[in-house]
Amino acid sequence: MTRSINRDTQLCMSLSGRPGNFGTRFQNFLYEALDLNYVYKAFTTRDLPAAIGGIRALGIRGCAVSMPFKEACIPLVDSIDDSAAAIASINTIVNNDGHLRAYNTDYIAVRSLIEQHGLGTDMHLALRGSGGMAKAVACAFRDAGFRLGTIVARNEATGRKLAETSGFGWAADMLGVQADLLVNVTPIGMEGPEKDQLAFERETVERANAVFDVVALPPETLLIKLARSLGKPVITGAEVIVLQAVEQFVLYTGVRPDETLIAQASAHALS
Amino acid sequence: MTRSINRDTQLCMSLSGRPGNFGTRFQNFLYEALDLNYVYKAFTTRDLPAAIGGIRALGIRGCAVSMPFKEACIPLVDSIDDSAAAIASINTIVNNDGHLRAYNTDYIAVRSLIEQHGLGTDMHLALRGSGGMAKAVACAFRDAGFRLGTIVARNEATGRKLAETSGFGWAADMLGVQADLLVNVTPIGMEGPEKDQLAFERETVERANAVFDVVALPPETLLIKLARSLGKPVITGAEVIVLQAVEQFVLYTGVRPDETLIAQASAHALS
Repeated sequence: MTRSINRDTQLCMSLSGRPGNFGTRFQNFLYEALDLNYVYKAFTTRDLPAAIGGIRALGIRGCAVSMPFKEACIPLVDSIDDSAAAIASINTIVNNDGHLRAYNTDYIAVRSLIEQHGLGTDMHLALRGSGGMAKAVACAFRDAGFRLGTIVARNEATGRKLAETSGFGWAADMLGVQADLLVNVTPIGMEGPEKDQLAFERETVERANAVFDVVALPPETLLIKLARSLGKPVITGAEVIVLQAVEQFVLYTGVRPDETLIAQASAHALS
Repeated sequence: MTRSINRDTQLCMSLSGRPGNFGTRFQNFLYEALDLNYVYKAFTTRDLPAAIGGIRALGIRGCAVSMPFKEACIPLVDSIDDSAAAIASINTIVNNDGHLRAYNTDYIAVRSLIEQHGLGTDMHLALRGSGGMAKAVACAFRDAGFRLGTIVARNEATGRKLAETSGFGWAADMLGVQADLLVNVTPIGMEGPEKDQLAFERETVERANAVFDVVALPPETLLIKLARSLGKPVITGAEVIVLQAVEQFVLYTGVRPDETLIAQASAHALS
């Protein structure tokens, strides 16, 4: 109940160009379930330096950072965790008594999912995309020990740059690309105009050993449905969005919720 | 329920040296009772300019300002309402799409209480105190038409200054001061070390026609109890704190709650 908010309640928040409801619903559900004196609210801003200055000055405990602020925040914080430094992109700020430290829980979540799903590092990776999230995912695979793979991106400049950063090759399209593990980090398949599109062609999926789609809404994209129907192991964007949010929750509160509670919070937040 | 906070929820807040719970409990009670998509939380800060910049940049809807920030905020806002301009002290900021306008709802509340209680402007006023709140109260009496009176303050510098601002006289103590209407704007009688003290001597209260004590906690100070026992009309600090909070609520939401609801919110917030 908002009535029970008092002077000791800690505020956590998000900053994004277009605030959604996932983080708000997920975090507030867990605060209530675990009886933690926290409250979470989404914001946007037209003045990022003043917004970050406000987080520091008001003692706001934590802030999730989404598009288009993930890189612009870097010079505004006081220190950068390894998870964010290597990819020069942050998605979380933690405020310890005025000291702002930045993390990238997308990277942490992808690293964790690679391990949980037991993906073999000898697989050839084909990763579509070259934006900020693609950087986090590509670097997570590199740091997990993957050495063979291709960044597939029509944009040659960003594609080649990410290939260089991550140590993989670059190709403009899938023609001739060897791919055991397909990773989609583009908006293809996302709720909206590209919902009915496939990030990889059916034949490519048939030949692959596993499919990872970072698109979280809908939780079951066309690509994931196709891969499941072909009996391929899958990792979904819903797993990423939930796991990265759990890592944020742990950074803000110091409490790690159990699997049952996480499942309940996810169901609530994605409903 | 904090679970029901979503991306459209508006945040209102307070800034003070030592955050209390009154505003948080009062405002959140009314938001819930009236089903308004708002949430309220108290803050303090060590960097006032950055805190006010954060309010603007994050689109925080409103902010109550308490000691010691009431005067320091003035150069940080974009415009000043008449209620605050005349006394150079603000207690409320309203954010309209990045434009911060400052008000003083203490002044508004006192003006309103003078009228509600039908205090005659021919009475001689004796007002103890010379701080920021004393300035709001003295100016409210002046603007309500009171012309006869004395600012009673041991601090000659601030006492004389307030006397000049408000058009009343100044005296260091009550010796020889004519007083029909006694007004206490000092911490004397407040919960804490001065709780068992009387802001005016018993004989002074006996000779007066009405007593106004701005101390809100406890709601019934020794002075108020004495005045009641002598059958004198009283105005209490609880009336001031509630009415100024109602005016803040109206400024933030555009909604004026009815008397029953205000009484319920007060009982909840002062409990």
